[in-house]
Amino acid sequence: MPTIDTGAVRAWLAGLQDRITGAIEALDGPARFLEDRWQKAPGEPLQGDGVTKILEGGAVFERAGVGFSHVRGPRLPPSATQHRPELAGAPFEAMGVSLVFHPLNPYVPTVHMNVRMIAAADACWFGGGMDLTPYYGFEDDCVHFHAVCRDALAPFGGDKYPRFKQWCDEYFFNKHRGEPRGIGGIFFDDFAEGGAEHGFALIRAVGDAFLPAYLPIVERRRAMPWGERERDHQRVRRGRYVEFNLVWDRGTHFGLQSGGRTESILLSMPPQVAWRYQYQPHPGSPEAALTERFLPPRAWI
Amino acid sequence: MPTIDTGAVRAWLAGLQDRITGAIEALDGPARFLEDRWQKAPGEPLQGDGVTKILEGGAVFERAGVGFSHVRGPRLPPSATQHRPELAGAPFEAMGVSLVFHPLNPYVPTVHMNVRMIAAADACWFGGGMDLTPYYGFEDDCVHFHAVCRDALAPFGGDKYPRFKQWCDEYFFNKHRGEPRGIGGIFFDDFAEGGAEHGFALIRAVGDAFLPAYLPIVERRRAMPWGERERDHQRVRRGRYVEFNLVWDRGTHFGLQSGGRTESILLSMPPQVAWRYQYQPHPGSPEAALTERFLPPRAWI
Repeated sequence: MPTIDTGAVRAWLAGLQDRITGAIEALDGPARFLEDRWQKAPGEPLQGDGVTKILEGGAVFERAGVGFSHVRGPRLPPSATQHRPELAGAPFEAMGVSLVFHPLNPYVPTVHMNVRMIAAADACWFGGGMDLTPYYGFEDDCVHFHAVCRDALAPFGGDKYPRFKQWCDEYFFNKHRGEPRGIGGIFFDDFAEGGAEHGFALIRAVGDAFLPAYLPIVERRRAMPWGERERDHQRVRRGRYVEFNLVWDRGTHFGLQSGGRTESILLSMPPQVAWRYQYQPHPGSPEAALTERFLPPRAWI
Repeated sequence: MPTIDTGAVRAWLAGLQDRITGAIEALDGPARFLEDRWQKAPGEPLQGDGVTKILEGGAVFERAGVGFSHVRGPRLPPSATQHRPELAGAPFEAMGVSLVFHPLNPYVPTVHMNVRMIAAADACWFGGGMDLTPYYGFEDDCVHFHAVCRDALAPFGGDKYPRFKQWCDEYFFNKHRGEPRGIGGIFFDDFAEGGAEHGFALIRAVGDAFLPAYLPIVERRRAMPWGERERDHQRVRRGRYVEFNLVWDRGTHFGLQSGGRTESILLSMPPQVAWRYQYQPHPGSPEAALTERFLPPRAWI
């Protein structure tokens, strides 16, 4: 048995999902999250349950999905045991919360956050992070988002933010375009340093920092006027988001290939997307500034 | 050296691309294909060249891409040698034409066609096919498309159409949704039966059958009136096309992961796409008929 009360982790995760959807509903106005409780059918390779919450067509959020899931499996998949060969094939338990929010206004950035725990035999390890994908670059927003990430990680050692920031830059990268997905944030995986309680405290710090990291940016940008030009740019850039998630993101790609719940995995897909050949914003435009000045990895703070 | 004049194959492929784009321009009206000639830079792992042709914003076609490419590499990739272990690591040459057309009118189906040849040492083998992805089902269109495919393959033996039809149904399948991409057509890979000239004749038959298979369907449907309802359905169904190409299609997925020319590989992406949670057309509607009656694999002729 893992040296952590997995019921307490589950309760915290479910509460996090509720707190976040509550705050988003309060911010969005009348729109409400639809709630889908699901349970794996007996006989499926993974057993477990989850709650998928999705808001579509809101005033601020065109599509916002937050998923909670808690599954048990008979054998750890090879991808999870490369750093732990002694646990190959052991029964496991995995739980987490994952979200992607796609705002309607192109001046409001898309955001992703995830916290998760995997437990097998007497070991458990943690992963997660959050990252921001703007369509228009605002220095203030990038600095704010990274500062909240840094402050959340500070109690766990000064090395964590720089390490997890770099990890994020490396992970959320569209190799086929030589381009980062967004302006980064923090990402970590396979974290077991300091024991289970330390790891749980770490994902709590990340989960709790999400609303303070993101909501002030939404508040600053939500009333900015936009038109077809901005919308068009947003749709094409969202295509890059789709490319990353379906081609490179391990969770999405292997989730779909291994029989995960499709509609829950694809909560991250943007609502309206466009592809255009050799999309090139006019040199000197704010659209060009995004790729030239904001996406290349930078020390934001 | 392969027992075939690769220059003749190249000339035929380049001619096929021109014939098809010429016919599409004639049908579309004033819109013209943009033409991008590209060449791999010295020092890149693959050497070679190609011509990418793309028409965007036409009257009939919202996005239509046709790519020709001809590359040489120092070592056959493992994916190409699983049936030919004796050629593992041999220098190779690959050429082909690939197209995807996304019409604007949701009553006109999307279509895909590909013909290709790979040569290594004294062996060469062929692959390709064509398949149709309608947004609204019309029995006549499915029968016509499959009949032209069957007739094109008839000179190569009566077994070819049933074999290649089934292969197509199996290949163009979104496993994560338990749903075929479209109503099928023909697909084959690693074809070396009967020698190189026989294989070349086979891809000529397939390439030459493309316009007769597809254009009559476009002519029948292009003037059908449509509105936001049909357009919306089309956008969501196009999302399934994106999912197939980025998650399951070996050519696309490995092309992007192995450093292929991104904009040429992604010619297949639809111009405008939507994702919506648990999209379910009204029971009894023409939109529901697509998934209920047309997509499940059927003997069309």
